This record gives sequence, C-alpha cells and structure tokens, in this order.
Amino acid sequence: MPSALVIETFTSRVLADNPLGDPATRKLPVILPPDYDKSDRRYPVIYGLTGFTGSGPMMLNVTAWQPNLQERIDYLTADGRLPPAIFVLPDCFTRYGGSQYVNSLAIGRYADYVIDEIIPHIDSKYRTIAAPEGRGVFGKSSGGYGAIILGMRRPDVFGALACHSGDMYFEYCYKPDFSKFINAVLKAGGLEKWWAEFEGKVKKERQDIEAINILAMAAAYSPNPDRKPLPIDFPFDLYTGELRPDVWQRWLEHDPVHLVERYAANLKQLRLLFIDCGTRDEFNLHLGARILVQRLKALGIRHEYEEFDDGHMDIPYRYDVSLPKIGRALRAAE
Amino acid sequence: MPSALVIETFTSRVLADNPLGDPATRKLPVILPPDYDKSDRRYPVIYGLTGFTGSGPMMLNVTAWQPNLQERIDYLTADGRLPPAIFVLPDCFTRYGGSQYVNSLAIGRYADYVIDEIIPHIDSKYRTIAAPEGRGVFGKSSGGYGAIILGMRRPDVFGALACHSGDMYFEYCYKPDFSKFINAVLKAGGLEKWWAEFEGKVKKERQDIEAINILAMAAAYSPNPDRKPLPIDFPFDLYTGELRPDVWQRWLEHDPVHLVERYAANLKQLRLLFIDCGTRDEFNLHLGARILVQRLKALGIRHEYEEFDDGHMDIPYRYDVSLPKIGRALRAAE
Amino acid sequence: MPSALVIETFTSRVLADNPLGDPATRKLPVILPPDYDKSDRRYPVIYGLTGFTGSGPMMLNVTAWQPNLQERIDYLTADGRLPPAIFVLPDCFTRYGGSQYVNSLAIGRYADYVIDEIIPHIDSKYRTIAAPEGRGVFGKSSGGYGAIILGMRRPDVFGALACHSGDMYFEYCYKPDFSKFINAVLKAGGLEKWWAEFEGKVKKERQDIEAINILAMAAAYSPNPDRKPLPIDFPFDLYTGELRPDVWQRWLEHDPVHLVERYAANLKQLRLLFIDCGTRDEFNLHLGARILVQRLKALGIRHEYEEFDDGHMDIPYRYDVSLPKIGRALRAAE
Amino acid sequence: MPSALVIETFTSRVLADNPLGDPATRKLPVILPPDYDKSDRRYPVIYGLTGFTGSGPMMLNVTAWQPNLQERIDYLTADGRLPPAIFVLPDCFTRYGGSQYVNSLAIGRYADYVIDEIIPHIDSKYRTIAAPEGRGVFGKSSGGYGAIILGMRRPDVFGALACHSGDMYFEYCYKPDFSKFINAVLKAGGLEKWWAEFEGKVKKERQDIEAINILAMAAAYSPNPDRKPLPIDFPFDLYTGELRPDVWQRWLEHDPVHLVERYAANLKQLRLLFIDCGTRDEFNLHLGARILVQRLKALGIRHEYEEFDDGHMDIPYRYDVSLPKIGRALRAAE
Repeated sequence: MPSALVIETFTSRVLADNPLGDPATRKLPVILPPDYDKSDRRYPVIYGLTGFTGSGPMMLNVTAWQPNLQERIDYLTADGRLPPAIFVLPDCFTRYGGSQYVNSLAIGRYADYVIDEIIPHIDSKYRTIAAPEGRGVFGKSSGGYGAIILGMRRPDVFGALACHSGDMYFEYCYKPDFSKFINAVLKAGGLEKWWAEFEGKVKKERQDIEAINILAMAAAYSPNPDRKPLPIDFPFDLYTGELRPDVWQRWLEHDPVHLVERYAANLKQLRLLFIDCGTRDEFNLHLGARILVQRLKALGIRHEYEEFDDGHMDIPYRYDVSLPKIGRALRAAE
Repeated sequence: MPSALVIETFTSRVLADNPLGDPATRKLPVILPPDYDKSDRRYPVIYGLTGFTGSGPMMLNVTAWQPNLQERIDYLTADGRLPPAIFVLPDCFTRYGGSQYVNSLAIGRYADYVIDEIIPHIDSKYRTIAAPEGRGVFGKSSGGYGAIILGMRRPDVFGALACHSGDMYFEYCYKPDFSKFINAVLKAGGLEKWWAEFEGKVKKERQDIEAINILAMAAAYSPNPDRKPLPIDFPFDLYTGELRPDVWQRWLEHDPVHLVERYAANLKQLRLLFIDCGTRDEFNLHLGARILVQRLKALGIRHEYEEFDDGHMDIPYRYDVSLPKIGRALRAAE
Repeated sequence: MPSALVIETFTSRVLADNPLGDPATRKLPVILPPDYDKSDRRYPVIYGLTGFTGSGPMMLNVTAWQPNLQERIDYLTADGRLPPAIFVLPDCFTRYGGSQYVNSLAIGRYADYVIDEIIPHIDSKYRTIAAPEGRGVFGKSSGGYGAIILGMRRPDVFGALACHSGDMYFEYCYKPDFSKFINAVLKAGGLEKWWAEFEGKVKKERQDIEAINILAMAAAYSPNPDRKPLPIDFPFDLYTGELRPDVWQRWLEHDPVHLVERYAANLKQLRLLFIDCGTRDEFNLHLGARILVQRLKALGIRHEYEEFDDGHMDIPYRYDVSLPKIGRALRAAE
Repeated sequence: MPSALVIETFTSRVLADNPLGDPATRKLPVILPPDYDKSDRRYPVIYGLTGFTGSGPMMLNVTAWQPNLQERIDYLTADGRLPPAIFVLPDCFTRYGGSQYVNSLAIGRYADYVIDEIIPHIDSKYRTIAAPEGRGVFGKSSGGYGAIILGMRRPDVFGALACHSGDMYFEYCYKPDFSKFINAVLKAGGLEKWWAEFEGKVKKERQDIEAINILAMAAAYSPNPDRKPLPIDFPFDLYTGELRPDVWQRWLEHDPVHLVERYAANLKQLRLLFIDCGTRDEFNLHLGARILVQRLKALGIRHEYEEFDDGHMDIPYRYDVSLPKIGRALRAAE
C-alpha cells in the first residue's frame, strides 16, 4: 500500500516582506505513511531539504528510470527497511536560487521558516512525535548543508540527520567558482546589469547558474543591507577578484568544518549523524567531508561516514542508504 | 483563476501484454480550464507529447526559474493569448525510454494507445469538442515527431499540430549516434549483456542514454519479433557498423521528410501545421525541419515555420509561441 | 649513434600554379640512418604522411614526454627492431588544411607531387632501393588514408604500407560533421564570407577546424572548377543539408572500403598491409577499419590488423608497432 | 632575408646531478638576425621562456596556419617593427614538466642555469650587448612567470620583460586544481604509485597533466629534500586536501603579486615591464594580472598592461605585440 501525498498550501509570516519579494505562500508536500489514516499512533517526521536551485516539490518530480522521493519511500517502507514516517518537503527556493536554510538579511529567514513555522505547523496538524527523538532531517548538496547546519545548531529540534554531499570546506567548494562570477559580472557591465540580465533570461544557461550560485552564497553568508545595488558583501573584489579576508571570514563562520568544535556538545546529542559523498564530487565535497569526519573523530562525536564511487549530480539513490538509517534511529525513540 | 489539474489513473487494454512488460495502468494528467466547472460549454483538447525519456506527467515537473506546463497554460490563458482548452498529457514512456508514439511489435501499440483509447476516454469523460477541429497535438523532440506523425496520418483525429524540434531527416539526427551504440554494445560484450547492464544501472549515464536512444529508435522503426535476444533489427552491423540498407529503408519509411508527399492530402486538411527548431540543434533537427519545409512548400501545404537561436534542450518556452496558435486555430472551429 | 636529419628545400613543378596558390617550394625532411655516411649500401625508403592540418616537418616537432619521429626511429633502430632505412616526410599541407594526397582540381596534384616528384628526387639523390620492395609508406588519419590510397593504386611504387586510423567508411567519419560545416557557413553569412573569415582568423578555433575539414574533403573528393565562389561541389545542400547523391557518390569513389575490390590485385602484391585503429576513435575509424578488414578477408588479401584501447588523437606511439613491420618487410627484399 | 637558426648543444654544469636526473646536455636554439654575419655590430639578446610542459625548441615547432617563433621574428623584423636582435630559447623542461625557472632542491637550479650559464655562454660566443639594457626576456604562462620573476630579481641582468598570461595570484591559478591532484593520487593508491604510473604512461592524458602541474609547482615552490617518496612538501593534506598554511605560505613567497613590493626598486629599473592576459583565461590569470597591475600602480612602477579577448591556450600571436616593444626598449639602449 502506497503512502498518501498531501500538498498543502502554507502561508508564512516569517517570509512576509522577505528582501527578495519571494512568495510567502508556497506548496508544502507532506507524505503520510500507508497506515496513517487507519491508525491513531504518532509518527516520526523526516524533513527533506533540496539542493541549490531546488525546492521541496521537486523531490516529487518524475524522472526516467528513477523513482521520485515518494516512490522511493514506498518501496523502502514496503520491504521493511524504512519504518513508517511522515516526510515533509519544504520549499526554500528564492530568486537567487536558494537560501542555504539560514537566516539572511539579503534573502530571508529560512532557518526560522523551517524551524519556527513549518515544524510547529506539521506538529499541530499531524500525529507526530513532536520531539527531537521523533524528528529527522536529510538533504543533498545545499540541502545536505541545511541538514547539518540546522542539526548542529538545534539538537532540541532534530534527533537524526543525513548530510549527502553537503557544502563544506568552502575553500574548495566555492572559491574555484569565484572567477566565474567575476567574469560574468564584468561581461555584463557590472553587478546591476548582470542581475537584470539574469532575471530577464527566460532560460538560464550553465554559466548563469554557476554565477548565481556564488551570488546566492554571498547573500546567505555575507549579507549587507547597506550595500548597493544588492545588499551583499562579496568576499572578493568584483574587478580583480582579490580576496577580502574580512568577508571571507564571515563565510567561514558558516562552514561546517569550522563549526563542529563550537557545536560539539550539540552534535553528540544526535542519535544519527550520517555523512556521505561521492569520491568524484565535482565541487570537491568529498574533501570537505573527510575534513569534517577527521574533526568529528578528534572530538569523539559518533557518526557514520560513507564514500561512494560517483560525482555530485543525480545521486538520489543514496537516500536508499540514509532514509532507513534515519528511520531506525528515530524508531528507537518510540 | 488557475486551471484545475486532474491526475487520472488510466488502465489500457491496448498496452496489456505489451512486449516490454511496461505497465498498462498509468497516470494521465488532465488540465481543465479555469471556468470548466462553472460552464457547460465544450472545450477543445490539446494533447501534449514529451520527448525521449519523457512522459506526460514530467511536463508538470517543477523546475527552477521556469514555469511547468500548467503554470504556462495559466498565464497564457490569463492574459488572453490562449483560449480556454483542456490539456491531456499521455504517458508513453517504456523501458526503452520511449515509443515514438508508433505501433511497434517490439515496444507496443502506442499510436493506438493515444488515438483509440486515451482520446475516446477523454471525449467520453469531459466536455470536449470531439472532432478534429477541436483537437490539437504538440510536442518536442520525439514528442514533436509524435505530433507530426499522428497529425499527418490521422487528420480525422487532429486538426492542429505543433512540432517543436521534431525528429526528422534521420540521416543527420540518428545516424551520427549509431557508433555510440555499437561501441557501448561491444564494450559490454554483446547486446544481451549490454541490455542487462543498462537495466541494472541505478543511474543511467550520458553514454547509456545515447545508446538506448538508438536501440529505442530501432525498436520503433524496425522491430523484428523473430530476432534474439531482442526483437529488433538494427540498420547496421553490430560489430562493423556497416549499414544494412534494407533495415535502414524501414527507418526511412518513418521519416517525416519522406512521408509528406504520401500524406500531402492529409496535411492540407490541418488548420494549423506549426514547425519550429533551434538553429543550433545538437541533433541537426533544424536541417531536417528545413528539408521538411522545402517539401511542404513544393507541395503547396500551408504551414508556419520558425527558427530560433538555441539548441535542443530546455526550450519549453517555445510553447508560449505554439500553444496560442493551436488554441486560436481550434477556437475558430467553435 | 643517432640518425642524421637533412632538411631539404625542394621546389615542385607539379605544384606550380596550384589552384590555392600554396607554395611550390617547401621543406622536405630526410632522415638518414646512422651508418649512411660510412657505408655504400642502398637503403629502403619509408615515406611518412601526416594527418589533416599536418605537414611532414611537424613529425619532428618537440612534444613533452614523447619522442618526435626522429627520436623514435633512433631508439627503434638502436635496439634492432627497425632495420636501417631512410625516412622522408613530405609536406602536403594546403590553405584548406591538407590534400588527402590525391590529385584534385580544387587543391592541386598532391598524389603526383609525392609519386612523380619527391620519390624520383629521393631516389636520384640518395642511395635507395629504388623499387617497390624497397619502398614503404605510413601515416595516420588523413596520412593513413594517403598511405593506403597511394599503396593500393601504385603497387609499382610501394611494397609495404601502414595505415593508422585512416579515413574510411565516409558514412561515419565525415557525414556526422556535415552539419557543423553547414552551421558555420550559415552563421558567417555564406560560403564566401565564411572562407574570408577563416583565412582572416589569426587563431583557428575548434569549430573552424571541424568546418574546414569538411570543406577540404569536398575539395579533395568532389572538386568542380566551374563552381563559385570556391571550385568545389558539396555533397549536401548548403542551407538544408540535404544530401546530394550524385556528389556523395563521387566521395564514395575515394572511400577505401569501396576501392578494395577494384584494387584487389594490387593489394595482393604488397609485402605488408598493416592497418590499426583505436577502439574509441572519435571519427569512428575503427568501424571503417573493421569493414575494410572484412572485405580484405573476403577477397583473400593478406594483411595485419590491430585494435588498441585509445582514441584518435596523440597516438604516434603506434609507430613503434608499424615501423619495425615495414622495415622488416622491406629488408626481406634486400 | 630570413634569420639564421643555430641549434647549439649545450652542456650545463649547474644541471649536473640535478635531483630528477634530467639531462644536463640539451639543445639550445639561437636565432641570429639576418645581417648578423655581414655586420660586426653587437645585438640585443631576447630570451624566450616556454610554458609548463614546454621547452625552448618547441617554440620552433611547425603549426598549421600559424608561424613558429622564427617565422614570426622574421616578418616582424622584415617589416621594421622589430629591430634586429638575437633570440635564445632555453630548454628548462624536466620530468615534472617544467621548472618555473627557479632554483629548487626538488627539481634543479634552473634560475642559475639560465642566468649563470646560458647568458654568459651567449655573451661569450655571440656579438651581444652584454648588459641589462641589451637583454630582454619574455614568455607565456609559466614562461611569463619565469620572465617576471627573473626580471624582478635580476635588474642587473634584464632590462626589459614581457609577461604573457603569467602564473600569479596562486589563490586562483593553482588552488582550484589541488583536488584534481589529490583525486589522482588517491585513485592510484598513493603518491609513489601515482608517480610510477605517470612515468610509465606512454601517453599522458589531460588529467595526468592537470595533476603533474600541481606536483611540479609544489616541487618548485616547496621542495623538501627530507620528504619521501618525493622530496616535496604539498600545501595540502594528500587525503583530505586540507590546506597546510605553513607550506602554502612558502608558495606565496613565490607569487609575483606578493613580490612586487619587495622588488619595487628593481622593477623601477626596467626599461619595459609589459604584462598582458586574455580576459577568459582558464587559469584566472587575468585576475592575477589585474591585482599585480593595481600594486604596480600603487607603487608607482611604470608598466604597460593589455587585456585581450581570448583564453589561455594558443596565443603566440600576442608576441606580435610584445616582441617589438622589447626590441624597441632595448634598441634605445644602443
């Protein structure tokens, strides 16, 4: 018996008047376990976070020869690997392509949106285990970043997390693309023109995505409401590319590998801290993951780590590994 | 006011026992115009066909910075460009990645599936204009092929069609990829092993898609139930690649540029024959389109042709051009 | 002891007034065996033909981590694999990038240049075995084409040949690039403008080379002195790309796979007919080679065939295989 | 009248017993101006340095549709743009692909080789203006790096320099490739195996070159004779990629943008300090050049700077700009 999909329309107060004018009312897919309607029990809730340019509803997209997230949950549940759970897929997409699931003066308060609005809403509307031992979070790429960042900061909220190919060690995952952004901006004739061109393009090309990615990260990690034309500090000079150490430092304060020490006590509270990455990750996130894992080990933080032989793209099959682990970690709580 | 999306679950008799064991029961998205429930009028129906590796429901996938088909229909309808119409999105995906919307002994009877089952079903269930003057079809790539093939063969069914970047002049759109298939098969150790590997891969890589594309075309154009291990004749030797003219001839009998003469009378009955293609189409379909258009001109067949500055991928924005044309062509019928 | 390099300056009568105005006076590298000056014996001569965009002197180019042809000859000779021989490296480069070593009304008489001028010159100036049993030819890509074409037509001239990744089965090696030429010409605004742009470019880009390659093949295989602006018939329409079977037929009359039957008696006279190709050849020449080999077998023509795991580019290391074979085949003649 | 090419064979004492066992005896091309033999005047000498994987003799390689360096010098001289000068093309290639023209305990003393051996040899053997006002140096990529590094350190040697697309701002030109090296080494099973594999490969692939590039830079900038299996410190951990700030600092001490302040007085002595770079440089060297130029301006160091619309590869046509400038700067000395 398959799960039931409810696509809610949820209006946020947190996102009202967000700096980018992105919609406060969005679709919020909720996947209920097969027996939800027939039982009166409470279920763990697992939040799924998408990568950059993604949104929760995209996890339900139909793809050739591959299950979407609901189909995956169904077969994992059917064969007993995954204990019944509710899945919630928040939409944190923005005009910049994403939010990194943080609160940013340039983008909006997306951490609060997830933590303070969506979770209470789900807990009030569905029969959930409304405690960290009943709540998990997973995601890939920027979604993996969101999972580990939210998880390490809020052990009172999440009891289990899976970080797939998550953004970390910014030195290697972002810095190599700074020049792409600089080149794009110069070609367009400046930041304002570049942004206008970007928004005007009915079709974003590969180089547009590469450039907006850096802009979005700067908007997430180093917003500056006083800056024009966009309220963003960049960690580099827009003409020479020379690094600006003060802004770069602000970025590093968002880098998971630099945060594990500060949040060690929190991380130790997790029932599951699962990390994986492909050994051919095009954004070098396997290197970031290795550095993170080295630090977790040094701090005595329990975790599971896997590498697999693949790159960064098209790897939802890895959820077959992580979702059962999250499900079992949370079930132990019941 | 937006359209209403109904996702039917439709069970086909035509697809029962199809050679590939693909499901006979599939989702069938139907998009109803905003005023459908409040009126008692009849509406034109426009059928949307996806490209290779696609299926109808994929046209509803969420994509960053781009509307999906329903959102597109909504804004085209809202601003008056597109007269109200029902849209139907058949799923003709197969284990081979597609069907080309033809009847094939190796794949199944997908032309019949659309024409003899889905259309009658829609006409019986919804208030449609159940006549060619109330029926349109559009699609891109293999979907564009499907649109023009079904349209030219069945003017008693469709009164308007839009063929975007449709497969044609097989000489240029398929032949350059024959070697990719041959290389893949040899590398795998033969056709049977290749097919087993393909099916076993949780993630199909680019070269897998390139190879299955040629296999699927052979299955559509030159099936042979007596052949082992797959019921397919290939238009080339699997080791040397040397062309087999007899099989290639069977392919050409499915090539739109070679069919226009035979179906000239049919094509002349169309209210709209719209063709477009990007001038940088990676499958050289702009060349095929030019050849087709030259022949349409020579035969005095009315048509509209546009070229645009883009390649083959990510061009649903072209529906902004074609859907209003189809809608207006069909409206004239009311 | 190393070989001696003589770079002659040779002035051709055959190339005087060639249609492209290419120089009639060119460098002609001659590599003499180590003991040439100390002996009075006669030596076999092996002619080396370069690929498209190449010229004889390029075989002496210095490349990182790889020997050039002279260094290769030296170590092959030093360790006894290669019997002492004279090597000659004709320059058949043209403004179109090459000549295919044929006589063409659009390019010049490059077959005659090699056969009727360079060979007699070498035989008159050096102590050679001036007979087919003392003469070999080898080359790669267009040079492999030249080797097999000259060899099959003139068994009275060459007694041994090695064809590495040679142009053949034009269906697969040229046709897939027709569209690149058509696109380039249309983008430039016509053939005349394209050619002017090409000649004016201080740096030819990849797409320029892809386009000139097709132009050069047409100039070699289907010249037409009456045509304007260039004296060339193309086997396709320059706007639609539609094939022109009559011109294409002229091309096929230059395709080695179609010539073996006609020249079977000649080919049987060869002491060595060596063919090889990489199994990942980007121009599909491994398929052409397989077809050729199949026909050689059917005709009972003795040959040696090897495939190796590589692509089309940067494979001079294959000369380590072929040169000793040629050398030994010719030595047997002494 | 063309120049005369003398290819000397020069045996170095400096390179005897170099750590890599590279040959101490190498070819040294010297290009003498057309009137050299007929005059008794003294000439300026311009030293040309090649990029990574290059060597002096490669500047004489024959290339399709492009002049080699000698032909370029000839037409620049013939039309009066370039005053007569002697050109010398040192070979500083190594098993690691290059030397960066520095003294390194891991590679050899290539700065000394050029400055202390080749230059005195040339001055002793040819009629040169044996003073900085008669000596120039130019190069591209690693050769541009060599030109500016040698020029800024030894104003007593060189009076004019042209740095084309030279390595600088290591943050952007090297760091993005660290992960490629790490991936390659891990895939091979460690540094020792990787190096053995590299040396054993008859054909180096693109990824091999990307990896050896990082190794060579480490060998040049952070050699460590005590390290095994190779006498090199890497600025990153070989498994996690984590930066090692102490080693990275050693690299930065070789970065031109960090050296201009220290060598400002030297740089001010130059008659010509020419810098250029393509605005699409794939190694981001245009950003490095801009940073350098900003610092030159701040320090009041006279220079000429040009950007051009191209990438990093195949840009010898830029010598048409720089060589006349060098020639004129030196001529003023006469």
